[in-house]
Amino acid sequence: MKANTNYAKLESSYLFANIAHKVAEFQKENPQAAVIRMGIGDVALPLAPAVIEAMHKAGDDLSKKETFHGYGPEQGYDFLREALRKYYGRHGVELSMPEIFISDGAKSDVGNILDLFALENEVVVPDPVYPVYVDTNVMAGRKITYMSAEESNGFLPMPSRETTGDIYYLCSPNNPTGAAYNRAQLTEWVDFAREKGALILFDAAYEIFIDNPDIPHSIFEIPGAKDCAIEFCSLSKTAGFTGVRCGYTIVPESLIFDGMSLNKMWVRGQTTKFNGVSYISQRGAEAVFSEEGLAQVREVIRYYKGNAMIMIKAFEELGITFFGGYCSPYIWLKCPREMESWDFFDLLLKKAYIVGTPGSGFGVNGRNFFRLSSFNSKENTQEAMSR
Amino acid sequence: MKANTNYAKLESSYLFANIAHKVAEFQKENPQAAVIRMGIGDVALPLAPAVIEAMHKAGDDLSKKETFHGYGPEQGYDFLREALRKYYGRHGVELSMPEIFISDGAKSDVGNILDLFALENEVVVPDPVYPVYVDTNVMAGRKITYMSAEESNGFLPMPSRETTGDIYYLCSPNNPTGAAYNRAQLTEWVDFAREKGALILFDAAYEIFIDNPDIPHSIFEIPGAKDCAIEFCSLSKTAGFTGVRCGYTIVPESLIFDGMSLNKMWVRGQTTKFNGVSYISQRGAEAVFSEEGLAQVREVIRYYKGNAMIMIKAFEELGITFFGGYCSPYIWLKCPREMESWDFFDLLLKKAYIVGTPGSGFGVNGRNFFRLSSFNSKENTQEAMSR
Repeated sequence: MKANTNYAKLESSYLFANIAHKVAEFQKENPQAAVIRMGIGDVALPLAPAVIEAMHKAGDDLSKKETFHGYGPEQGYDFLREALRKYYGRHGVELSMPEIFISDGAKSDVGNILDLFALENEVVVPDPVYPVYVDTNVMAGRKITYMSAEESNGFLPMPSRETTGDIYYLCSPNNPTGAAYNRAQLTEWVDFAREKGALILFDAAYEIFIDNPDIPHSIFEIPGAKDCAIEFCSLSKTAGFTGVRCGYTIVPESLIFDGMSLNKMWVRGQTTKFNGVSYISQRGAEAVFSEEGLAQVREVIRYYKGNAMIMIKAFEELGITFFGGYCSPYIWLKCPREMESWDFFDLLLKKAYIVGTPGSGFGVNGRNFFRLSSFNSKENTQEAMSR
Repeated sequence: MKANTNYAKLESSYLFANIAHKVAEFQKENPQAAVIRMGIGDVALPLAPAVIEAMHKAGDDLSKKETFHGYGPEQGYDFLREALRKYYGRHGVELSMPEIFISDGAKSDVGNILDLFALENEVVVPDPVYPVYVDTNVMAGRKITYMSAEESNGFLPMPSRETTGDIYYLCSPNNPTGAAYNRAQLTEWVDFAREKGALILFDAAYEIFIDNPDIPHSIFEIPGAKDCAIEFCSLSKTAGFTGVRCGYTIVPESLIFDGMSLNKMWVRGQTTKFNGVSYISQRGAEAVFSEEGLAQVREVIRYYKGNAMIMIKAFEELGITFFGGYCSPYIWLKCPREMESWDFFDLLLKKAYIVGTPGSGFGVNGRNFFRLSSFNSKENTQEAMSR
């Protein structure tokens, strides 16, 4: 048996595993240190009461023969897909039910969707970038090129006449930089992709943080996007589902490449390699999109956005350059004195007991930047800023 | 963008989707018909009380800040991996913790594990076969060869000197035939694979139905298997988790191909493309392996095995040739008068309102066979047999 040697081209371990290892070492040597974790994008607050109630009820359903649910549809239950159809409707996006797929999280689908594309496609990712986009393509052996996200373009690269490539990853609001494309910029991207016959993989994981009407929540708010884009989103950030596992993927029916419908291919792929998301998680997700659930969830998001404001104020006072923080849980700050980001990581951990994510972990352009997240308690955020 | 045209080589829809469509049509035309579904392998009985209790408690954990669980380890929580380590110990199999991976079901991992193998490997599957083994490899563009499972070998193909191939799929107790390899047969397979440098993908999804000491529950009961096999299992059949979604995959640390550790590659793959299984599902799964949970689960399995005995008795009385049924929830029966299996499907649906699975859906060798499952109520099983 021959192994897939593309794996040998990967860095030996995943960024967040590296960080976890460094922090564990530090904690072992300094057990008294009150470390504040502002690195990985995990949430701090518990689930909304409406979600808990729905999941309890779902558990009860499974305890009785009359209400038991076995295998569900691989694409997700209609009750949840319908709730999502309405949620998209709030932003003026019309989706058909077959375009909506329930996933166990955006990370899984962002990786698995690659099955639908030929290996010889050229993949274009921004630098800095969420490492999953790169690693999943390296594993498959695809050619990757980078487009520069940097201070001069506000960390929002745009296509040009010279840009070549078949598959473009856009994440807006962006992980790691927190920068978000406005309507005019996304329109430019959609027009470009349609003209070139390219595909955009749009990661909308942080859409719930948007409170600026000029920043689209979904790429499908842009006319023509249904001919050139797939969108991924997750309830991990929207509703603190990092441990519950539920997300969604939109694959428009009008996406046709080489005469093949990507929507039909994805149905075929999912029915073959997936058995759907836990019934309990899907009932919890349905509750997120109820009036009561959305109100509770937005309350939590306001809390995290309050943390971002605490950071923004601190950085403005200190005169530190930063990006993001407004329509995003992430703040992307410039390391002091051109410091390399891993050096800044070590310094911050050792001197202030604060864990962040070094920009280098996201690409060359991140070498002098550092990502902090607002997914923490208000007290910890304030404490971290005062340190 | 170029689509993965391997998808065009697939049959247009998945076997069970086809059957569901046919049954829906029939029900629409005959709303009064009391259809009994003995086709797809979904369970009928609700979850064990110990599982429900554990999942309720897990939901409560997520409702409070102090006990909230966000992102879990991609490989699964140690509490569940440790429970599995002990479960394997009951059959004399010693596993290390890093060898145990928690999945959202065997189907996902059986599909996703293929990422680890080079595309040029030759894949060998039995005919008849669980369609997922074939379709996932067709999607990736691998060469597939078949080994004949037929009446003369009891639907249990064995390797010979002439057998060539790199990756072998074995499912025991088998889906769809219900046939199960004994210790001597599996030893022959393991010796063969080690000699040839081949890999066995062992699907143990139905191990809980085994009550014959000569039939191994795990391929790792066979000496040397850790050098040549990966094992997949699921709680779908063990504990009725078809809607809860939790399974496990064993990737031994000693599996080295082309100097690469498949275990380390799988860790890298899972941490990149997966975010772990729902905390609630994992707590439910942990409860399955408690003394109380195992006792409750085994009670349910006894019930399904009772259904299989009802079928076995009926077929013996009618002089119908069949396989399986003893260490398996499936009975694989020969269609009367050399009938083609889809014809028999139509006949059984129209005349007796019984849904089974046509053997043709699993391969050429299934053309005159038909799969019935014991995952139904005792009453329905009795009613079906009398019809």
